Amino acid sequence: MPKEHNTHPAPAPGRVHLVGAGPGDPELITLRGMRVLSAADAVVHDFMVHPDLLAQARKDAQIFCVGKHAGRHTIEQDSINVFGRGGEEALALAAAGIPFDVVPGVTSAVAVPANAGIPVTHRGMARAFHVITGHNPPEGQAAPPLPGPDEGTLVFLMGLRRLEAITAQLLNRGWPANTPAAVVSQGTLPEQQTVVGIVSDIAAKAVAQNLPSPAILLVGEVVSLRAQLARHDGSSPFFTSSPEKREGT
Amino acid sequence: MPKEHNTHPAPAPGRVHLVGAGPGDPELITLRGMRVLSAADAVVHDFMVHPDLLAQARKDAQIFCVGKHAGRHTIEQDSINVFGRGGEEALALAAAGIPFDVVPGVTSAVAVPANAGIPVTHRGMARAFHVITGHNPPEGQAAPPLPGPDEGTLVFLMGLRRLEAITAQLLNRGWPANTPAAVVSQGTLPEQQTVVGIVSDIAAKAVAQNLPSPAILLVGEVVSLRAQLARHDGSSPFFTSSPEKREGT
Repeated sequence: MPKEHNTHPAPAPGRVHLVGAGPGDPELITLRGMRVLSAADAVVHDFMVHPDLLAQARKDAQIFCVGKHAGRHTIEQDSINVFGRGGEEALALAAAGIPFDVVPGVTSAVAVPANAGIPVTHRGMARAFHVITGHNPPEGQAAPPLPGPDEGTLVFLMGLRRLEAITAQLLNRGWPANTPAAVVSQGTLPEQQTVVGIVSDIAAKAVAQNLPSPAILLVGEVVSLRAQLARHDGSSPFFTSSPEKREGT
Repeated sequence: MPKEHNTHPAPAPGRVHLVGAGPGDPELITLRGMRVLSAADAVVHDFMVHPDLLAQARKDAQIFCVGKHAGRHTIEQDSINVFGRGGEEALALAAAGIPFDVVPGVTSAVAVPANAGIPVTHRGMARAFHVITGHNPPEGQAAPPLPGPDEGTLVFLMGLRRLEAITAQLLNRGWPANTPAAVVSQGTLPEQQTVVGIVSDIAAKAVAQNLPSPAILLVGEVVSLRAQLARHDGSSPFFTSSPEKREGT
């Protein structure tokens, strides 16, 4: 990542950039995201942001961590980076008359599966994918109904302790017990782990591995592609953990 | 974008990087995507890639456009960058024993709505989003059933001439005629245009505007947030078309 912060002109005064910082790997921020981050007078971040990214802020920039700010602590950490608060923050800024823009980032819901050797769509296999928060809905709200087994790939962003409940719901919804399923923990980070199974056993397998959060549950035929895309040693060729990863950054 | 190509070490010989180049705006490629692009001996691209990105390839790199390659010409151009062929290319590389990795990119399905002032999820409004190819399915394949009106936000990636058929299907599926809907054409590019309406009139409105492809259809309550997020002149504050856009690149 660029070290020469001074080559980046400062943005216009008083503008807020809402930046999607990516799914975990700090090199998956966008060029524009890095540009505004490294030029900012102040950086407000949650606790999902990689420290290597914060290190790119100007040395004199004010850094605020709002990860446990009031109103946020009821949201599980592993959902924040995808089902984030971008919309709410944008509404607050608009209401306050503060100029802002959004710098879209790489979405965990698609990038984490790809990095684990699982494309969420595939010709002849899935023409749609569905991204669902697997957390319990806030009090008084119903969880949305789940798509059925002929509707495409499911991507759940969730805490691992919800796995058992979600897979039970899928079986109730008519998903065959032997539908391929995978859990990807800490996707795109060096610590990434993937557990593959079927709807009826993936929860037990993930628990047995004691996977850490954040995690993504994938359900659908596309999960079966991973077997063909995995290296002979069982690791995925998608996951670049070689030293090349940090070169040139 | 970096001009100093020689500071990027070349990757290991004979490795293929499958790079998601982003939704349109060339500054929305990731740092890693730019690194491997600017170091590559050869660049194979489709016709959705922005010329400013190709200009970052090494001057001695071989450039191949495969946008109209056999087998691809039946796919409508505007679906390739999202419902891309990443999975198929990965399978072909694995079968041929060629080392490869995937560099995930910014997904149009989420970034284009955000850039038009429409978050695909929003607390209390949508806990899920569904990304669906709006193209006619290949011969012999049925299109997947559509999610219902209580399931979250719908994102269709499609040719504009399919709008009428898709909205008719939504009404059949039980979506209320007055559900907010929007079409975003050429999202994240300077030419981005957004037309807002409801399920029953969005097709006619988009046709009246004669919007060019590629386009995304959004359906759901979250579309209503755009009104609060739009500037007084009607443009979205999300869309950074100011001169700052290219500064420092």
